[in-house]
Amino acid sequence: MSNDALLQTLRDELGRDAVLTDSDVTGSYSRDMMPLAPVGRPLAVVLPVDVAGVQAVVRACAAAGVPIVPRGAGSGLSGAANAIDGCVMLVLTKLNEIVEVDAGNRLAVVQPGVVNLDFRNAVEKHGLFYPPDPSSYDWCTIGGNLSTNAGGLCCVKYGVTTDSVLGLEVVLADGSILKTGRRTVKGVAGYDLARLFVGSEGTLGVITQATVALRPLPQAPGTLVAGFTSTEAAGAAVAQMVREGLVPSLLEIMDASSIKAAESYLKTDLGAGSDCQALLLAQSDAGGEVARRELAALEQICLDSGSDMTYATDDLAEGNMLLQARRVVLTALEQYGLWLTDDVCVPRTRIAELIAGCQRVSEEVGLRIAVVGHAGDGNMHPTIVYQPDSADEFERAQRAFDAILEIGLSLGGTVTGEHGVGKIKKDWLAKEIGPVGLRVHRQIKAALDPDNLFNPGSMFSLT
Amino acid sequence: MSNDALLQTLRDELGRDAVLTDSDVTGSYSRDMMPLAPVGRPLAVVLPVDVAGVQAVVRACAAAGVPIVPRGAGSGLSGAANAIDGCVMLVLTKLNEIVEVDAGNRLAVVQPGVVNLDFRNAVEKHGLFYPPDPSSYDWCTIGGNLSTNAGGLCCVKYGVTTDSVLGLEVVLADGSILKTGRRTVKGVAGYDLARLFVGSEGTLGVITQATVALRPLPQAPGTLVAGFTSTEAAGAAVAQMVREGLVPSLLEIMDASSIKAAESYLKTDLGAGSDCQALLLAQSDAGGEVARRELAALEQICLDSGSDMTYATDDLAEGNMLLQARRVVLTALEQYGLWLTDDVCVPRTRIAELIAGCQRVSEEVGLRIAVVGHAGDGNMHPTIVYQPDSADEFERAQRAFDAILEIGLSLGGTVTGEHGVGKIKKDWLAKEIGPVGLRVHRQIKAALDPDNLFNPGSMFSLT
Repeated sequence: MSNDALLQTLRDELGRDAVLTDSDVTGSYSRDMMPLAPVGRPLAVVLPVDVAGVQAVVRACAAAGVPIVPRGAGSGLSGAANAIDGCVMLVLTKLNEIVEVDAGNRLAVVQPGVVNLDFRNAVEKHGLFYPPDPSSYDWCTIGGNLSTNAGGLCCVKYGVTTDSVLGLEVVLADGSILKTGRRTVKGVAGYDLARLFVGSEGTLGVITQATVALRPLPQAPGTLVAGFTSTEAAGAAVAQMVREGLVPSLLEIMDASSIKAAESYLKTDLGAGSDCQALLLAQSDAGGEVARRELAALEQICLDSGSDMTYATDDLAEGNMLLQARRVVLTALEQYGLWLTDDVCVPRTRIAELIAGCQRVSEEVGLRIAVVGHAGDGNMHPTIVYQPDSADEFERAQRAFDAILEIGLSLGGTVTGEHGVGKIKKDWLAKEIGPVGLRVHRQIKAALDPDNLFNPGSMFSLT
Repeated sequence: MSNDALLQTLRDELGRDAVLTDSDVTGSYSRDMMPLAPVGRPLAVVLPVDVAGVQAVVRACAAAGVPIVPRGAGSGLSGAANAIDGCVMLVLTKLNEIVEVDAGNRLAVVQPGVVNLDFRNAVEKHGLFYPPDPSSYDWCTIGGNLSTNAGGLCCVKYGVTTDSVLGLEVVLADGSILKTGRRTVKGVAGYDLARLFVGSEGTLGVITQATVALRPLPQAPGTLVAGFTSTEAAGAAVAQMVREGLVPSLLEIMDASSIKAAESYLKTDLGAGSDCQALLLAQSDAGGEVARRELAALEQICLDSGSDMTYATDDLAEGNMLLQARRVVLTALEQYGLWLTDDVCVPRTRIAELIAGCQRVSEEVGLRIAVVGHAGDGNMHPTIVYQPDSADEFERAQRAFDAILEIGLSLGGTVTGEHGVGKIKKDWLAKEIGPVGLRVHRQIKAALDPDNLFNPGSMFSLT
């Protein structure tokens, strides 16, 4: 089938308005938020409104031999949803229905195009809680969250996206519909295919519906902030919290560079003092006296580890203000240039070593690197700042990006905690999982997508 | 390679004592605890002591074209580890080392032959908790737990085996070693292969090591028991607990038939009254005042749902005595004959309907059926009693077994909540997952085990 014939088929199947080919328009769908990732020119962008439309796209592209790149909102940070030359961008944002909220069984059925925040709000009306909360939660979609196995601030207590998934509906490479998983909280009938598709970054099929487990709505959290004059002390506090079995509902870390950026942007003093090298931010959503006890235990560990400033509050608004400092870091860094955020996860006992390593890299490449991260998971986001008009700085930023991954691996960590592999970390994935791991990935890809229809060359290459 | 040559190779590689061929001995390794499942005659039983030994067995059997059935303690309830004719039974019980307990990162590395209880005890010394607790926890092995994705009483709060798995080492069909997953709590580098192998019942590879996440040791639990004069009322109480967002650490149900059996066996009155149709048993391990509040909330729901007898205690010994009634049900049923336990999981709002269905089946086939189950998960174990010397009763028991699965599916459930598919529920798996699901299973099996070396014909047939 020629490209023209493919476009005609797509228009016939989806309607003219659902098939975009104007390059000004398709360009806006062709990349996500990761500046390092390569990006191609799509043949077309298609916006089906239902699963039948997705099947039609898959069948038509399969017949034409034209690759498909599935895409949600484009908030990704690995280029997984970046176009490749001549592909069809399959945009799922119009499959945006919350099909069902079953409060009696604490589950919901949702389409991939629903925005994370809209879904959270909808289930909250039933007194229920959908935990995964990536930073982009106010615009990213559930489909993207599923495809990247997204995390967020909640993970330390509530796990990542895959931990909420009960079942999936997936359109396979031949256009057939796989329904996998279940509506029950337990079940071992067959392989765990749902969790194979979660995090597969659009390389195995197109997720068109998910059944997810919901949790009881937690209590309004109390908040603790603690300042440290060394990152080692902050890291030791985190390790001690883990060792003592504390499970806060949030546990974030900011290094000195992040604190400075946030203070400058917010035009406020975070109260950390001029020699503050790290802030820990913790919350407990256990409610009432229990939350107060949990925060007190966390606070005591911070003090025992050498914190010279702690402050705890059970006032929600005040807690949100304290957290604001953490949330604005990336925006705050834009005062200094463009940012490139990395994503590395290390054992929780190694956080201070990672931060120290990032400081060394910063000195080596001569660029500002601010480290923020989900300390409770060891999932750090060292963020490199570079000038937009300097090819040299961009090259140094790339070097820093890679150097940080190397440090992460050397500390027993992984090259991606939650952002994914996409089109920027293929070599790193190969390094982390080794030749046998890579071979198994290729075998599974070949088994489910023998003609390499879905997002070819993303995550890993076939040869 | 001839069978004799294979045996010689195995003896050369593992040592003579590690290769058993005496049929009296091999017979004792040839079946698990499920009487319905077919069982074949193994060529040999092998007991390697390390991963190199496992690799040697896999390579030798692959070369000889002799199938391998991996096996742990043999506590399974689906025949997954039953021998097939002419196979090599690969027994993992001698890979029984707890390699590492890392309290600072709340994880452990463990070999498959370690007994669940031994592992629990070992991590408890570090103040840590390994949740999965199948009923056979005092003799089943971690490897079997991984291969079946075992559950237990803890699941309502702490999830099933797969929820604790961070990484696996697996010997693949060509004898190579796959290391998948990680030591960090988060990570999205590549497909979630670890969770593909968990629950794959020995059909994709041989698990030789696991890295598992541990939890803080919970508080000693408080216990609640509540009696109901109708199963509908008990089911309504469970649904209301779910709806109100309560997450007890245990929530079990016993029907009238189970209660009678336990009372007769324990020679005690459970205080349920003669018209008691269902007991709920709940625990909270949240500690102190929180546990008391949680139990009080559960108790209130029971009373509001029509319970005419409730009793709560925070005395651990008394709580254990109350739970004893639940734990002895299978043994207690042996007063009346042999038992055949089913495993079906339904949405938590449908529990009463399942129990009513089991009562109908009991009347139809004329056999005693006692229903016990993990009410908090909807995972029920209707258990059919039959006489050992009656072929007719055995046939009726099989009919009842299938009829219960049919009811489970009709209620939106799954044909196995935690025991697995094995060699008894292949047709039911096919029915539940449908032709597309079955095709994907076959594709993955063919990709990872192209010569059908591992447990062929278990879980699903290749054609």
